[in-house]
Amino acid sequence: MEIPRELTQNPLRKIWMPCKNGLPEKHISQKRVCMTNCPTLIVTVGLPARGKTYISKKLTRYLNWIGVPTKEFNVGQYRRECVKIYKSFEFFRPDNEEGLKIRKQCALTALNDVRQYLSVEGGHVAVFDATNTTRERRATIMRFAEQNGYKVFFVESVCEDPKVIAENIVQVKLGSPDYTDRNTEEAIQDFMKRIKCYENSYQPLDENLDRELSYIKIMDVGQRYLVNRVLDHIQSRIVYYLMNIHITPRSIYLCRHGESDFNVRGHIGGDSGLSPRGKEFAQCLGRFIQDQNIKDLKVWTSQMKRTIQTAEALGVPYEQWKTLNEIDAGVCEEMMYEEIQEHYPLEFALRDQDKYRYRYPKGESYEDLVQRLEPVIMELERQENVLVICHQAVMRCLLAYFLDKSAEELPYLKCPLHTVLKLTPVAYGCKVESIYLNVEAHTFRFCLRLLCKKINYYCKYMHVRTSLDGLRRTSPTPPPLLRPESHARSTSSINTQNTQCRSSVSSHFQCTTERQITTYFLKSHIIFIYLDNMTEVIGLGLKCHISIN
Amino acid sequence: MEIPRELTQNPLRKIWMPCKNGLPEKHISQKRVCMTNCPTLIVTVGLPARGKTYISKKLTRYLNWIGVPTKEFNVGQYRRECVKIYKSFEFFRPDNEEGLKIRKQCALTALNDVRQYLSVEGGHVAVFDATNTTRERRATIMRFAEQNGYKVFFVESVCEDPKVIAENIVQVKLGSPDYTDRNTEEAIQDFMKRIKCYENSYQPLDENLDRELSYIKIMDVGQRYLVNRVLDHIQSRIVYYLMNIHITPRSIYLCRHGESDFNVRGHIGGDSGLSPRGKEFAQCLGRFIQDQNIKDLKVWTSQMKRTIQTAEALGVPYEQWKTLNEIDAGVCEEMMYEEIQEHYPLEFALRDQDKYRYRYPKGESYEDLVQRLEPVIMELERQENVLVICHQAVMRCLLAYFLDKSAEELPYLKCPLHTVLKLTPVAYGCKVESIYLNVEAHTFRFCLRLLCKKINYYCKYMHVRTSLDGLRRTSPTPPPLLRPESHARSTSSINTQNTQCRSSVSSHFQCTTERQITTYFLKSHIIFIYLDNMTEVIGLGLKCHISIN
Repeated sequence: MEIPRELTQNPLRKIWMPCKNGLPEKHISQKRVCMTNCPTLIVTVGLPARGKTYISKKLTRYLNWIGVPTKEFNVGQYRRECVKIYKSFEFFRPDNEEGLKIRKQCALTALNDVRQYLSVEGGHVAVFDATNTTRERRATIMRFAEQNGYKVFFVESVCEDPKVIAENIVQVKLGSPDYTDRNTEEAIQDFMKRIKCYENSYQPLDENLDRELSYIKIMDVGQRYLVNRVLDHIQSRIVYYLMNIHITPRSIYLCRHGESDFNVRGHIGGDSGLSPRGKEFAQCLGRFIQDQNIKDLKVWTSQMKRTIQTAEALGVPYEQWKTLNEIDAGVCEEMMYEEIQEHYPLEFALRDQDKYRYRYPKGESYEDLVQRLEPVIMELERQENVLVICHQAVMRCLLAYFLDKSAEELPYLKCPLHTVLKLTPVAYGCKVESIYLNVEAHTFRFCLRLLCKKINYYCKYMHVRTSLDGLRRTSPTPPPLLRPESHARSTSSINTQNTQCRSSVSSHFQCTTERQITTYFLKSHIIFIYLDNMTEVIGLGLKCHISIN
Repeated sequence: MEIPRELTQNPLRKIWMPCKNGLPEKHISQKRVCMTNCPTLIVTVGLPARGKTYISKKLTRYLNWIGVPTKEFNVGQYRRECVKIYKSFEFFRPDNEEGLKIRKQCALTALNDVRQYLSVEGGHVAVFDATNTTRERRATIMRFAEQNGYKVFFVESVCEDPKVIAENIVQVKLGSPDYTDRNTEEAIQDFMKRIKCYENSYQPLDENLDRELSYIKIMDVGQRYLVNRVLDHIQSRIVYYLMNIHITPRSIYLCRHGESDFNVRGHIGGDSGLSPRGKEFAQCLGRFIQDQNIKDLKVWTSQMKRTIQTAEALGVPYEQWKTLNEIDAGVCEEMMYEEIQEHYPLEFALRDQDKYRYRYPKGESYEDLVQRLEPVIMELERQENVLVICHQAVMRCLLAYFLDKSAEELPYLKCPLHTVLKLTPVAYGCKVESIYLNVEAHTFRFCLRLLCKKINYYCKYMHVRTSLDGLRRTSPTPPPLLRPESHARSTSSINTQNTQCRSSVSSHFQCTTERQITTYFLKSHIIFIYLDNMTEVIGLGLKCHISIN
């Protein structure tokens, strides 16, 4: 038996890994439990307007959110790119040879892209979204998967209810680029004929003929499911997820607790109660919910005082989830950001480097939080109208799921206090309404001294010799923003007048400024920067000038 | 809108609840998310030897473990109690009127007990385990459920594979009391005829006729599932669970990390590395695993250094689960028990009152831990051979699941260091082998002074005036144990000679002594007690004499 290797802890993610001579080794441990040992190709099956794309998009969003890199490949999209102008259903007729050839070519191109994604780009799951209604087409896909070492899982949607099909056409298909110039009746007629084109040759997955395949057959929009040969963890998760989603119209209301005493005093974490303004918000929330007159609304809170106090003001039953508790800041709990910077300067810097994966010492990362919140998402999918009273980091994670935001964007999503987000599923996504309940809340004001220290610290951490020249507040109007690339690797002091400026600040940029600054700073030695919007700072213009010697 | 109520925190479970005049109110919040709003009756369907009882017992164990009070009602058992001596399959012949009458009566008696359990005793789920092969019988059950306001979920097991059926008969039925005096061949023949008695009248759940029912049909031992009309969270969990279990023979190996530096120093929690003896254990574990020559063994660790270091010594790939991390002792992390007692005396006392539900301030309870570990159990069910290297509290939770231990027993299960538990599923349970790898480990020795203080503290806490008379170590032979009931509410000092003693110490008692002492002490003002075995103390006899003035 060989001598066990030493362990070293990844400072960002706090994960122990083997090392040799102080350097992390290519190790045989895996960070998280393997979902599957080879890539998975999910293949939809079903006539048009059976919700295949809905399922594909939703499943892709879910898998990405739980950390499984997933991409959907919609063959219809490939067809639209190939044949720019859609004329009519004639294109899909089984005797239209030109049409058949193009459609087959599109499928093959899509499969090629699947291979690129799974075998080159490191994707774990590809969702191949097409009708795949013939056994022959499915056999082609199986061969492709076998050659490339992918597992295949079929998802078939069977629905005979004309009302459901009509609803789907109206909700989704009329908005498709195929029908932009048609009137509704015309488009519906054309689409119904398109369905007809597939009906004759449709060979549903068969209990006997296809008994060797892994699949789920979803019947009548989730009334009934047939599940065959589930092979691994990921397939099991997919089945569970698909069995929990539904299409009953409903809304999910997300908000944070009312302003807490800790919010006012600028401390993070803890379990403090509501401030007077927080209590005012709770009352307003109660009136808002009453006014909305929501059918069978369920109210969920965390097990922390501030969310429960908020829920109490509603005067309706509510359920407490420990799982909804705020991110655990570990040793930093109850500190002010300044104190963290003082006591754990390295931690403070690391958090900015990768806010999603950064784990507080003895605490959690956003990544951990997403894993913890998975059962909440699953139950939210099962439920109808729900109000979730939670916390900033928790709300960001939930929001990222519903709005399909990446792990990179997630920790910077704006979830201000005293604001309710109403999410209503529509077609392939979610409508978001942001309702500010008009109760002022304390905004954590970014501290100039802290910023100074922080930047200084980065420099030290990156072994860049610096002198902090100046740092002063500018006017509250959005200042021009420097393109950091233009000064990458510059090593001399540069003056404002020399800098190339960009005056438009995109909303995306507003969301992620802090992180980008850090990244640019660390990666490109950016030497001059305007801060317009820090994560927690709204409307505070900062100007910071650093010269690197 | 009424004025929000004040909140008070339950000191044991650290749950916030509304209060009035300082007293907790009957509140409209629920501690945890409702699994279902009314009791659920799970009804098995299928011919004999289709694994119905296996499924019932397993499901019952799982639901109880996740905190849903569940009980199984096996009609066969009622029949055996009613007709003491089983003669032959003739009893089950459809033309045996006497037999039919008795069987029907047994079913009704069982249903009566179901009602008692769900409507009186507070059970949430009852599993009605019988063949229920006719539509008529199922209709009777449906009516019964409707009258009592229960939801019904059917679980049908269909299997045509003669090998699987024969295996089931040999594994399970031959051990049944019905066949204790028969030889194997005779018993098999009789049982096959019993199955025949049901075959003619068997009406499986039908996709069309039963489309209004909620059910899962398990085909060919999990090759295929048909799931219809899943109505709520609990049904969804049941379906997911049933789709993940399998009957492939395998073993699960559970052990704790090797002895850590903190173990040696008597500190709890933390993230310390292995002691020299801990490293020795890791090596021994490696050899043990090699010797066992286990097919496709997966190794799981927590994300803590001590389990990863242990796994590293095996020289095989392993997976890290944050979910397997040790119970979070919150503010008590890294303390010694004595320090906890010093700094948080109330907490220390509370923990003894209800070790399962007690939550460390800013930490976790065993109850929390079970909830956190649910995905691990689900994945363990899916997997085959697995070695889980974990921690004491975590191992107790996992063990309680496999050995069907109650929440009360769970926190006292013995999971010593340097000992591997090999769990092998057999018939309706688990075979357990305990393998001590012969590397000494530090045992936390119970401190007399600490015990003194602790008892003293209870008294103060309960407003009982006490004087601690004496506390001294006795001989290591099991001392007699006082029946506390005989002295309940006694208020004068009582001498050893007067006490009625019990000299046999049951193993159950050994496991839970500490808790019982506490409970008795708090509830019955027990005034004289022998401690034979404390939670963490093995073979240390303690004698404690307290007189209450």
